[in-house]
Amino acid sequence: MFSTIETPRLVLDKARLEKNISRFRDLAAAHNILLRPHLKTSKSLDVAAIANGNAKSGVTVSTLKEAEYFSAAGYTDIMYAVGITPNKFAHVKRIADQHKNNLLLITDNVIVARASADFAEAEQCQMQFLIELDCGESRGGIALDAPELLEIAQIFDQCPFISFMGVMTHAGHSYTTDDKERIGEIAEIERKTVVEAAARLAQINIQSEIISVGSTPTFIFAKSFDGLTEVRAGVYMFFDLAQFSRSICQLDEIAISVLATIIGHAKQSRSLIVDAGAFALSKDISANTFLPDAGFGYVCDPVTMERLGQLSVDTVHQEHGNIRLDDDAWFERLPIGSMVRILPNHACPTAASFENYLVVENEAIVTEWQRVNRW
Amino acid sequence: MFSTIETPRLVLDKARLEKNISRFRDLAAAHNILLRPHLKTSKSLDVAAIANGNAKSGVTVSTLKEAEYFSAAGYTDIMYAVGITPNKFAHVKRIADQHKNNLLLITDNVIVARASADFAEAEQCQMQFLIELDCGESRGGIALDAPELLEIAQIFDQCPFISFMGVMTHAGHSYTTDDKERIGEIAEIERKTVVEAAARLAQINIQSEIISVGSTPTFIFAKSFDGLTEVRAGVYMFFDLAQFSRSICQLDEIAISVLATIIGHAKQSRSLIVDAGAFALSKDISANTFLPDAGFGYVCDPVTMERLGQLSVDTVHQEHGNIRLDDDAWFERLPIGSMVRILPNHACPTAASFENYLVVENEAIVTEWQRVNRW
Repeated sequence: MFSTIETPRLVLDKARLEKNISRFRDLAAAHNILLRPHLKTSKSLDVAAIANGNAKSGVTVSTLKEAEYFSAAGYTDIMYAVGITPNKFAHVKRIADQHKNNLLLITDNVIVARASADFAEAEQCQMQFLIELDCGESRGGIALDAPELLEIAQIFDQCPFISFMGVMTHAGHSYTTDDKERIGEIAEIERKTVVEAAARLAQINIQSEIISVGSTPTFIFAKSFDGLTEVRAGVYMFFDLAQFSRSICQLDEIAISVLATIIGHAKQSRSLIVDAGAFALSKDISANTFLPDAGFGYVCDPVTMERLGQLSVDTVHQEHGNIRLDDDAWFERLPIGSMVRILPNHACPTAASFENYLVVENEAIVTEWQRVNRW
Repeated sequence: MFSTIETPRLVLDKARLEKNISRFRDLAAAHNILLRPHLKTSKSLDVAAIANGNAKSGVTVSTLKEAEYFSAAGYTDIMYAVGITPNKFAHVKRIADQHKNNLLLITDNVIVARASADFAEAEQCQMQFLIELDCGESRGGIALDAPELLEIAQIFDQCPFISFMGVMTHAGHSYTTDDKERIGEIAEIERKTVVEAAARLAQINIQSEIISVGSTPTFIFAKSFDGLTEVRAGVYMFFDLAQFSRSICQLDEIAISVLATIIGHAKQSRSLIVDAGAFALSKDISANTFLPDAGFGYVCDPVTMERLGQLSVDTVHQEHGNIRLDDDAWFERLPIGSMVRILPNHACPTAASFENYLVVENEAIVTEWQRVNRW
């Protein structure tokens, strides 16, 4: 089915995508919780439409470029889940003005809160803010007991141009373990952090309309969603070896792969060379922590998607990937010019190497979907 | 100078770029050897024009998309330095037809050579080929003593539509050491490999017009260029921490950096958060082998480009970078909203995260240059 395709190409299996999305939509329905899909993995209108049941509202993005792209397509209720700084206010206002869409912004900082209020008043510009909490990852977010929690909320509450919308956090450290019990514990801390933050704010009569958590692992292994209004997750749509290595998905649920051509038989080093290297696969090796043979990706049959023996991409150069062989018979099975599909370590950076998806269904290429990359 | 710039942005220092290029052009002139700049790092017409002294001929590329972009701009004598396979022949022919430019292709394989001859005859299409040798990296290329060397050359020699152009190799393993003597030895093996390959071919009356080697480290530390017709190198235009870590360049010669904004003060983990994460910096950590504090990049003052204390980007998430602090005073020195410039580990993947360069000169933004990414 790929014989005329120039490689490397990013391939998306539509049936797997739909199945993954259904699983998470069903999970959200079963827990009676809103799922706000994170579009940072797919960065695609077509994927978002499936992920969101064709509803053009209630999504998460990681860049203002994504926010603009989805706003231009009619999406509203978009959370930009990276701390805003004043040098991005003009862009936020442009999106509000041009696309009639007021983003949900986040901050963890008093100075940004004050600057936002100043900007909103000076520009007569409506803004919406959530406060970001840290639930243990120590990336963004303030501590639950930080005095700034109340201070920031009060700044927003007192500004007539800013709507204070609530609290959010992200348990990114749920990726540091493959122990489901431990992920469940992290999920519980994630939940309690924002629920208790909202309670602290309620004590000073500031209400949180949105109480938001999110990561793919914690959504799956959470024991409770009490008090939350929504969950954000993104990589579940595609999955990858990093998720497989943490028992979050099965290999045959990974919806994304890189189609590559065997361009060399390096007999002296007993390896195959493919035309998918660091630029096509990315240098992310996050699956290897719990899956030491992941390398830069599992090498699969391009049609059946069965892994070829124990083959992985072992080393990468800019445009070359090197697959070490355990048996010379692979030189016969995979002649120069034959193709493989490589399951990626981490779907987000691998997908970001490409501008579009070659969408396959029932062993046929059905269409091409675009992505919105960069900033 | 950057106050109105939305971050992250890729910044290119024009004075440093020109100095690096001059150094290599002078080196080539001193050794009386042709420098065929590799454009895979910059992927930019503007950078290529400086690198090639405005000559539109004699360059190297890593993708057919680059080949097409430079061909469309009038470049000729372009070597596509990744082994070709039959699924890319149609693209090669399209470039030849549309842009009147016959690429220099490479192969290390008898099957590809035969397929090329068949394609060239069937399509009445002129093609030009070099044979790729392995000089120790064990990536692409055949061994010097492989019988296929003669066999491939004969296939080309006998095909009326194919011009056999010569031999090439790449000492990518020169990056595995920071010992100048050892790099010099690798350079000598690189040189001998192709010179001796050309001699083997001359014995069967097949002449090599091009005898080509190349890598930035081996070019600098080579003891001899005898018998070579040209050298390929690319990263020397920008340099990076990987080159600095191997004593190939000084810190103040690195021409490329990522402009980022401090978007968070994570007091609980004593770190700064910047809006340059894995997607802006890449996950390449190749400098760390010989420069353990490189992390995901050195953090510098945005104007003076002096490194700020011992600060590096220590961890990255998709859009977040985390800078661990040795002193709380940094929270005062780098308030939320202030900017830094980050020197990258490896210029090639970092630059590939962006569509364009913000070009600065004499502490002012002078222009924007475009790049051609992907395939």
